[in-house]
Amino acid sequence: MRHTLLFTILFASFVPQMPATAADQKANVTRKWAIVLHGGAGAPPANATPQQLQARRDGLAAALTAGRTVLAAGGSSLDAVEATIRVLEDDPLFNAGHGAVFNSEGEHELDASIMDGSTLDGGGVAGVRTVKNPITLARRVMTETGHVLLAGPGAEAFATQQNVDRVPNASFSTELRRAEWEKVRAQEAAENALRQQPAKPWQIGTVGCVALDKAGNIAAGTSTGGRTNKKFGRVGDSPIISAGTYADNATCGISASGIGEQFIRHAAAAQISLLMQHREWSLQQAADYVLKQRLRPGDGGIIGLDRSGMIVWVFTTPGMYRAAADSSGRFDIRIGSE
Amino acid sequence: MRHTLLFTILFASFVPQMPATAADQKANVTRKWAIVLHGGAGAPPANATPQQLQARRDGLAAALTAGRTVLAAGGSSLDAVEATIRVLEDDPLFNAGHGAVFNSEGEHELDASIMDGSTLDGGGVAGVRTVKNPITLARRVMTETGHVLLAGPGAEAFATQQNVDRVPNASFSTELRRAEWEKVRAQEAAENALRQQPAKPWQIGTVGCVALDKAGNIAAGTSTGGRTNKKFGRVGDSPIISAGTYADNATCGISASGIGEQFIRHAAAAQISLLMQHREWSLQQAADYVLKQRLRPGDGGIIGLDRSGMIVWVFTTPGMYRAAADSSGRFDIRIGSE
Repeated sequence: MRHTLLFTILFASFVPQMPATAADQKANVTRKWAIVLHGGAGAPPANATPQQLQARRDGLAAALTAGRTVLAAGGSSLDAVEATIRVLEDDPLFNAGHGAVFNSEGEHELDASIMDGSTLDGGGVAGVRTVKNPITLARRVMTETGHVLLAGPGAEAFATQQNVDRVPNASFSTELRRAEWEKVRAQEAAENALRQQPAKPWQIGTVGCVALDKAGNIAAGTSTGGRTNKKFGRVGDSPIISAGTYADNATCGISASGIGEQFIRHAAAAQISLLMQHREWSLQQAADYVLKQRLRPGDGGIIGLDRSGMIVWVFTTPGMYRAAADSSGRFDIRIGSE
Repeated sequence: MRHTLLFTILFASFVPQMPATAADQKANVTRKWAIVLHGGAGAPPANATPQQLQARRDGLAAALTAGRTVLAAGGSSLDAVEATIRVLEDDPLFNAGHGAVFNSEGEHELDASIMDGSTLDGGGVAGVRTVKNPITLARRVMTETGHVLLAGPGAEAFATQQNVDRVPNASFSTELRRAEWEKVRAQEAAENALRQQPAKPWQIGTVGCVALDKAGNIAAGTSTGGRTNKKFGRVGDSPIISAGTYADNATCGISASGIGEQFIRHAAAAQISLLMQHREWSLQQAADYVLKQRLRPGDGGIIGLDRSGMIVWVFTTPGMYRAAADSSGRFDIRIGSE
């Protein structure tokens, strides 16, 4: 059992940070906090106007501000993740909530998940149709049901019981997403393929956030409309704890965006955490390995942070919409390959 | 990058076995095969009659025979896994297909997944209601859609397109499961709880199979009716690749049974594979670690086998229904803690 003993020793060095002590507070020591978010792996279209690019930057900045405000005030990482993702869900430019892509029936089916790194509790919803902010319902799954994933009409029934904000399905629609859908639908009809073709970068898109709060707790969340023209109740990685979302105070928090099937097969988010734990790799090493050695070029990207507040992003797509802030004053907005 | 180099060296020693060479065939060398299955983690009720126990043994033996026949004849591990699980789905004594538990509406919602260790392709279905053998539909998801998970009405629409066997939902019902449901429903109503109580051992149940074929390919599959009186479209680990099912020719195949939420949070099946790959642990060491150090006592069990055909089962429940056979002539049926 040498390995088990070795592991026990290693693990002991990874115990979660404790809340600030009275002595810390007396000395007015500010504990570190950090937040990182993404608006999907992919680059802006080549013909995007400066105004369009600025609107994306503004959307990322608004979401980042929502999350950083929570953390700077001493709020929890779970509250910061939920607040950040709600802003991105409500922004029509990102593929989550309002602005979600169209499925094969011209409607919207939304997926989301959230995870609490202090308990390893998680919650996810798949295929919800009338919930204004799926990330909020995912959090209720985590805290109110004892389950980890609710799907379809059952998730809608739970939303009714929880009295979360509801909207008509059509309210998620935007003209941009409708035009994308018409284009993809025509292509796929021409190809007459049952098997859905590999997604193009502009067909995928997800939003996500990972936060570390002053108490040392990490939380992560992800929300998406899935991929354009998706059929048959397809579920990607975003609602699945360990595939698209993971958080463990002992290691890191992760939110992914990309070809969901690949992130599921490799339990990509959880794999990064496990590599940090079992190989003593840094978050950067573990994320590089999973994105560049296990997944295929172009499969997507991740954002993450570790328990020290070190922020990492890795993507093999031409770009990724992303932003980061922390208690040192960083406030950083990036699009494309910047 | 010392770690990456080290890993590359380790990984090189784990390349999948190649198909038998012409020289092997000429020498009439029989390549090894092996199969292991489970009918759920849990022990028979204390008041079970000898006839009831024998019926369980007979069911396990019939399923094992279906799979071993495929493998002994040189068939693929995927075919063996599907054949084995179909027998268990059709057997009213196991919680999958005919004999599935009742959900909170007195109906049945079935989940299944399958994974091909030679490609890391996988397929799963969640919440299907009229598909006679969900494992067969899961395999079609893997081979025909390019997706990894289909849920609810979409999965039913895919079943229609694939022309798999369909049955009325009520045909999955048995009187035993109805009586269990009535009992649980009364208890949960008395407790008046939104949060579902921790499952009792007899409320959970799953079937699964892992096989290694003569060509050295590993496949794994899992199928279940979920947990008695489940609400809100709850999805457990069984349809989720990496949680309840995993297969990788380089390491092992795994099928799990137990408290699905725990297996999802820990990506339990994939974690066992990753520990073998990254820590050079044996399957037994990796499975013991995940079941006994990461999951909680009583959370459930796994069956698995590695690329050498070594069969392992680990459970922290009072028992597990399970069986194993291999090319050395083993044919082994166990129930409870035997």
